[in-house]
Amino acid sequence: MSHDSATRISVGDALTPEDIATSGTTASEPVAQYALRLGDDALILAQRLGAWISRAPELEEDMALANIALDQIGHARSFLTYAGTAWGKTEDDLAYFRDEDEFRAAWIVALENGDFGQTIARQLVVACYQHGLYERLAASTDPTLAAIAAKALKEVDYHRDHAAQWVLRLALGTEESRCRLEHGLAVVWPYVDELFEDDELIDQLDGVAVRPSELRAGFDADVAAVFVEADLTTPDVQPSSTGGRRGEPHEQLGYILAEMQSLARKHPGATW
Amino acid sequence: MSHDSATRISVGDALTPEDIATSGTTASEPVAQYALRLGDDALILAQRLGAWISRAPELEEDMALANIALDQIGHARSFLTYAGTAWGKTEDDLAYFRDEDEFRAAWIVALENGDFGQTIARQLVVACYQHGLYERLAASTDPTLAAIAAKALKEVDYHRDHAAQWVLRLALGTEESRCRLEHGLAVVWPYVDELFEDDELIDQLDGVAVRPSELRAGFDADVAAVFVEADLTTPDVQPSSTGGRRGEPHEQLGYILAEMQSLARKHPGATW
Repeated sequence: MSHDSATRISVGDALTPEDIATSGTTASEPVAQYALRLGDDALILAQRLGAWISRAPELEEDMALANIALDQIGHARSFLTYAGTAWGKTEDDLAYFRDEDEFRAAWIVALENGDFGQTIARQLVVACYQHGLYERLAASTDPTLAAIAAKALKEVDYHRDHAAQWVLRLALGTEESRCRLEHGLAVVWPYVDELFEDDELIDQLDGVAVRPSELRAGFDADVAAVFVEADLTTPDVQPSSTGGRRGEPHEQLGYILAEMQSLARKHPGATW
Repeated sequence: MSHDSATRISVGDALTPEDIATSGTTASEPVAQYALRLGDDALILAQRLGAWISRAPELEEDMALANIALDQIGHARSFLTYAGTAWGKTEDDLAYFRDEDEFRAAWIVALENGDFGQTIARQLVVACYQHGLYERLAASTDPTLAAIAAKALKEVDYHRDHAAQWVLRLALGTEESRCRLEHGLAVVWPYVDELFEDDELIDQLDGVAVRPSELRAGFDADVAAVFVEADLTTPDVQPSSTGGRRGEPHEQLGYILAEMQSLARKHPGATW
């Protein structure tokens, strides 16, 4: 079955932010708010991972984390471009000219990288979460969200595999590598629950958005499969408070934005 | 004509660092010293460019500079792996466990990024230099160097194009963008001459290494073509002193290595 309408974005397309910007499709306010959440998660995670480009313990790993960061920037660009269609804004407007309380990233992506073990612990959580999310979102009734998710899914599949392989390697490596990984898991685990919270926005987007709570079982199963092989147990920690989706950002977000936005804000305008 | 010897690396191969490490080929001492120069240039440039992942003025540019950094890390990995065959060392040994005075990077790659105009000015210089270098090195009588260069050339061709496009965009953009680019060119230009210095090592490697002085005319022509279109003139500045190829590194190198090496040195050993 083919759709030849000029504004129809089909799942199979190699969808770029430019395609979205020029497709003539306009996101409704709630769809845009939803796209903002997904785009902000990807954008802030990419900023964090980017810091590893010169600090990974192996050159090869440098490239893997940096490539994952670039994938996430790509996903962020698509989601933010789509969100921006609701307000006549570009991806750059949204990335560089929003204030802290206008971001909607979950707290986990803004956490400091910590050591490599902690970064990998977060990667496992976020990749398993995004994988389940994009898998379902690829069937969204919103064709733009579906197309972005279908494309991102292939990359996140690799991110999940990358994180799982490193969890095994660290858990079954030396005493120190295992200890650091366990510490990293304990640090990030309080922030897991926020990813699976439903709210009023989700209620408005039946069939369009993925209901976060419905992703929890699949996430737990994904993680459990890795933990069994790595002889790890789920950290027994209290969930943190939350707020990322409501404009109450993690305390680290301000520092990330200061670095990310300073240059663009100093030189507004497209010719520079 | 085909070469089927197990240690023969032909130019057409998709040569990876792993291929080089397992090929059974061993670099001679002077070849290894030469490979170190090229690998260090690429590695240090990649570290500098990596810092742009969260600071470029546009999201799209983020990805371009980060991708260029990744290409350079790839080239560094190949050159360093090959150099290491002379001493029984891995790419990671050479990247993470050498001291400042054991590096052989030209000073220009260690310069601070400065603003975006300055980064682009350096990109133009380094990409034009590397393009000419790899073009000739692809005809080296050393098949490993030839294969690495042939593969890297395709990527550096894009780097050169990227830099030239940005030079035009900045030079012909706003008054401020032009002013910043001109300033950037003035800052990096004193470091151009070092790239084209011959020395005793080169004399020992006739047919294997590319004689730097022979690259100068092509470099000047490449740059002149861009400058004519951008209505720019070659900065009238005094050449800086040099020393990168002799183990007298640029004063910034220590800071770059501190960031790059700290993690690997804190946790030596392959399992982490």
